Amino acid sequence: MQNVSFDHVTLGGFWGQWLEKLQAVTLPTVYDRFSETGRFEAFEFHWKAGDPKQPHIFWDSDVAKWIEAAADLLAQRPDPALEAVIDRVVDLIELHRDPCGYFNIYFTVCEPDQRFQRRTDHELYCAGHLTEAAIAYAAATGKTKFLRLMQDYIAYIDKVFFQEDSAAFSTPGHEEIELALVKLYNFTGDAHYLEMSRRFVDLRGVSPKDIAGGHNNDYDQSDRPVREISEAIGHSVRAVYLYCAMADLARLTADDALRAACERVFDNITQRRMFITGGIGSSSRGERFTEDFDLPNDVAYAETCAAIGLAFFARRMSLLEADSRYADVAETAIYNGALSGISLRGNAFFYVNPLEIDLNQHRIEKDWYGREDGLLTQRLEVFGCSCCPPNIARMIASIGDFLYSYDERTVFVHHYFESKTAFDGVTLTQKTGYPFDGENCLRAQGLRGKTLALRLPGWAQAPRINGQAPADVRKGYAYLPVEADDVTLTLSLDLTPRLMAADPRVHADQGKAAVCRGPLVYCMEQVDQTAPLGQLLLSADLQPALAQDAALGCPALEVNGFRELPEDTLYRRYPLDRAPCRLRLIPYFAFANRGESDMKVWIRIS
Amino acid sequence: MQNVSFDHVTLGGFWGQWLEKLQAVTLPTVYDRFSETGRFEAFEFHWKAGDPKQPHIFWDSDVAKWIEAAADLLAQRPDPALEAVIDRVVDLIELHRDPCGYFNIYFTVCEPDQRFQRRTDHELYCAGHLTEAAIAYAAATGKTKFLRLMQDYIAYIDKVFFQEDSAAFSTPGHEEIELALVKLYNFTGDAHYLEMSRRFVDLRGVSPKDIAGGHNNDYDQSDRPVREISEAIGHSVRAVYLYCAMADLARLTADDALRAACERVFDNITQRRMFITGGIGSSSRGERFTEDFDLPNDVAYAETCAAIGLAFFARRMSLLEADSRYADVAETAIYNGALSGISLRGNAFFYVNPLEIDLNQHRIEKDWYGREDGLLTQRLEVFGCSCCPPNIARMIASIGDFLYSYDERTVFVHHYFESKTAFDGVTLTQKTGYPFDGENCLRAQGLRGKTLALRLPGWAQAPRINGQAPADVRKGYAYLPVEADDVTLTLSLDLTPRLMAADPRVHADQGKAAVCRGPLVYCMEQVDQTAPLGQLLLSADLQPALAQDAALGCPALEVNGFRELPEDTLYRRYPLDRAPCRLRLIPYFAFANRGESDMKVWIRIS
Repeated sequence: MQNVSFDHVTLGGFWGQWLEKLQAVTLPTVYDRFSETGRFEAFEFHWKAGDPKQPHIFWDSDVAKWIEAAADLLAQRPDPALEAVIDRVVDLIELHRDPCGYFNIYFTVCEPDQRFQRRTDHELYCAGHLTEAAIAYAAATGKTKFLRLMQDYIAYIDKVFFQEDSAAFSTPGHEEIELALVKLYNFTGDAHYLEMSRRFVDLRGVSPKDIAGGHNNDYDQSDRPVREISEAIGHSVRAVYLYCAMADLARLTADDALRAACERVFDNITQRRMFITGGIGSSSRGERFTEDFDLPNDVAYAETCAAIGLAFFARRMSLLEADSRYADVAETAIYNGALSGISLRGNAFFYVNPLEIDLNQHRIEKDWYGREDGLLTQRLEVFGCSCCPPNIARMIASIGDFLYSYDERTVFVHHYFESKTAFDGVTLTQKTGYPFDGENCLRAQGLRGKTLALRLPGWAQAPRINGQAPADVRKGYAYLPVEADDVTLTLSLDLTPRLMAADPRVHADQGKAAVCRGPLVYCMEQVDQTAPLGQLLLSADLQPALAQDAALGCPALEVNGFRELPEDTLYRRYPLDRAPCRLRLIPYFAFANRGESDMKVWIRIS
Repeated sequence: MQNVSFDHVTLGGFWGQWLEKLQAVTLPTVYDRFSETGRFEAFEFHWKAGDPKQPHIFWDSDVAKWIEAAADLLAQRPDPALEAVIDRVVDLIELHRDPCGYFNIYFTVCEPDQRFQRRTDHELYCAGHLTEAAIAYAAATGKTKFLRLMQDYIAYIDKVFFQEDSAAFSTPGHEEIELALVKLYNFTGDAHYLEMSRRFVDLRGVSPKDIAGGHNNDYDQSDRPVREISEAIGHSVRAVYLYCAMADLARLTADDALRAACERVFDNITQRRMFITGGIGSSSRGERFTEDFDLPNDVAYAETCAAIGLAFFARRMSLLEADSRYADVAETAIYNGALSGISLRGNAFFYVNPLEIDLNQHRIEKDWYGREDGLLTQRLEVFGCSCCPPNIARMIASIGDFLYSYDERTVFVHHYFESKTAFDGVTLTQKTGYPFDGENCLRAQGLRGKTLALRLPGWAQAPRINGQAPADVRKGYAYLPVEADDVTLTLSLDLTPRLMAADPRVHADQGKAAVCRGPLVYCMEQVDQTAPLGQLLLSADLQPALAQDAALGCPALEVNGFRELPEDTLYRRYPLDRAPCRLRLIPYFAFANRGESDMKVWIRIS
């Protein structure tokens, strides 16, 4: 099965608006912040000891992701000014790269004698992101200089790591180059890049150079050979980037053991270690997966990049097998735990995406118990470690990648985006108000004799196609033979808000429910309520009503709830007095856009 | 109103058994631990720099409380061996005290040049406990040497603090001497002791010597003059010891401003800052009160000594006004948050009394989030800071103090203990299985023409006296004219288990209920259940049944509940599948007597 690339897709509706914000707001804002902090200037290689703004080991990757996002946008919307910025960076790379092909700002400017000596210091990670950026830029513009520079660099990496084995380590401390090499193979057709990726993956957890110390090998997924992985452990972004490469390699090299490991770890994440928002990585200590069912709402780390990485991994799993649970998870992560990482205006970001903010409780824990969790309750325009802003930008810019895949007989429709897509003589047009509306109209031209497979989201009860229950449903896809050159179908998904519960082993969610509508997780913000969040409960009889929210630009929900009433007695006979009330909920991705406010996804229910 | 001293009371039943354990187990165990750690040996004053077992600044008080408990027991049960131990300590005090009267092991043996230089170092606290011990020993045995030694010491304190004002501070960093001086006044009739107590109390929060630094003055209640206190702040044991002295002084000197402060702070504690067990002091950081409604169950500090101190404070408030809420709080603290500090065998102790133990959650917070709360899940025989073991011993030894008070016209019955009490020609006999049984038979002899006032516990619905609703009830006391020399009454209290809820502002208790029966708070221990505690809920329809528990020696409760059932899906439609089940609850004071086990007072309810 192969993917339909986003550059065949013209987006409107929900994602079309996001592309507009990306171009008008997000890319310029991130560019400005990166300029102010010295990230672009660093490519001039003039930093000297004692100067301010010392280049950081991951700055190359920050700019690379920004370039990749900008390039993906350029593929859809020409923008000469944006292109000129990238050309300038590419020229600087050409100018300052080492004659051997090596390019890394920090390890050329700051510690030139330390090249490939420190496994944990992001050199290959930066190389991977630069490579992804170069591919995106070549694909968008046809300009190949950047790509050639990176191919030179990759050739040098091949020499150092696989011909000479002269680096101090065998595999990167932060995965990324593995999936970049697969992309490079896909783009160039050169199988050696695929082989390099496979070798990096196969050496992980095996090479004595890397695992000698023995401690902390789980942090960067080096504790065992990858084919033995069954649980998601360690730094969550690193983990899912590795799993992306593993899924790619499993498909492209028909490696069943690798595929089985991918399936096990996907199940472990999604059935044991994933927040309902698609966020992953429970703890800020090591930004990492912890253990099954440990999913605290208030101190949830759930880094934006990790949700993005999970969506990337899930998309790759979709290509291994047409099972809707993969696109279900990608959808959950995209619309909730990833999109929550960017403000509605597109100019501010969350690195960490908690599922609960209780400002008073947070203050109490800090003031009286010395528990400092570093909760950020307002989006920022830039972080010291600013991986997430350009990462959400490139996810949005390439969101069309998630839409379709195909093999000789079947075109798979994984998601419902307002869009028009043309490839290989096929034109697919979707008219939809998704994710806010459940009526999805799909016109397929040029598919006669083939099969359309429409994903029926796992959350949708009794989906209808042209008003009928679909007849041929396998693993969450409705298979429909196409009998004409031009057919139009309507997929009707019931968006009645639903109450969700977590497995009772999830300590933080006991006695609570979350409200979802279609793919969207909702949350309750203090700014919308008349009583403190802690005193509010959901009613099991929701009686939901949509309420357009002009300030947010997306539909809020009003549902039945109760307010518990404080009295003068600290302890009294159960039950507490309470009054029915309506609660206003908003999509989780829209939280923290109206000032600092308490927030809850999981709400007590009665 | 004045108290009937415990030495007029002969106890049987519940407290009689505790007195037996005190004599047979607790006092010998604590003696052995104190001997092993050098606390008794320290009275020989032979420690020199470099020796092991350096005396600690609070060791005098540990032994003093042990002596006080032993003396109180001697008043009820002769024990020549015990008396000999005390005599030996008294001889050592006489031998080693300074000719001026001063006695303190640490500041004589370790830092003789630092006498009365460091406000925070417990010198006056030790003096207070030694004085309380000396009074108790004189009262129990008629031997007055110890008392005279302490009177000499108090005279020296008077000279240093009030005649010369030559100490480096004006009031102690840890209150205690204030209430000891009131006791000394009560025992000797010498009003100068009362005046000394008043001066220590009045100088607190006023003396420039003490409050100069300005920081941390709230920790030891030195942030304002005592008559301006309206909230309980700072170290909880210090606070309630101060409030004890304030309540005594308010009564004995008819000081209405002091009384009003006592009433305000009593209300603040009991309506805003007290666990349902009567435990106080929410945070281990500073062992202190925090703020209104901050009552976390898992990290609850709730030091045993603080619950004891709250009971002492409440008893003193009962003497100011016949309002049953004072004895209600004393009862709650005694039977729950204080008694939980000692094991059922009487040989092991808790310093901290959490309302929830979740071993797995505790491990997760430690391993993955770096939150180390020092939760102790098993009782210990000794602590480095071992204030609680001898304190619970002296509370039990003098428990009869809580029973009765009287004025010219009325005898107040505050509690229901199986007992016989004789004072001033009156004999009061109680037959009762309290706290496990609600039928309380009271025989009063020698009270003709006076009034009996029986406390009707706040928790009791529709109490009956001789089968009738009492006619004359004021502030929780039923007033009954006594018309014969020998009358017998029966007070019937309904012990049907009740579900209690906390004010919705108590974050930790939201959505939960606690089960109480009579004065006892119950809890759920893992060892009694078939599923993890987190997956169990109470049913609002309890259908309670008593179940004698041979291992615990007290009645357990079986109540209706539900068990939530784990499945393979992390998130699913609400509600979760669940199965009805019976939950077994035990009195809170009996928790942690059968090995390490999860425990909950506040349980989710449906």
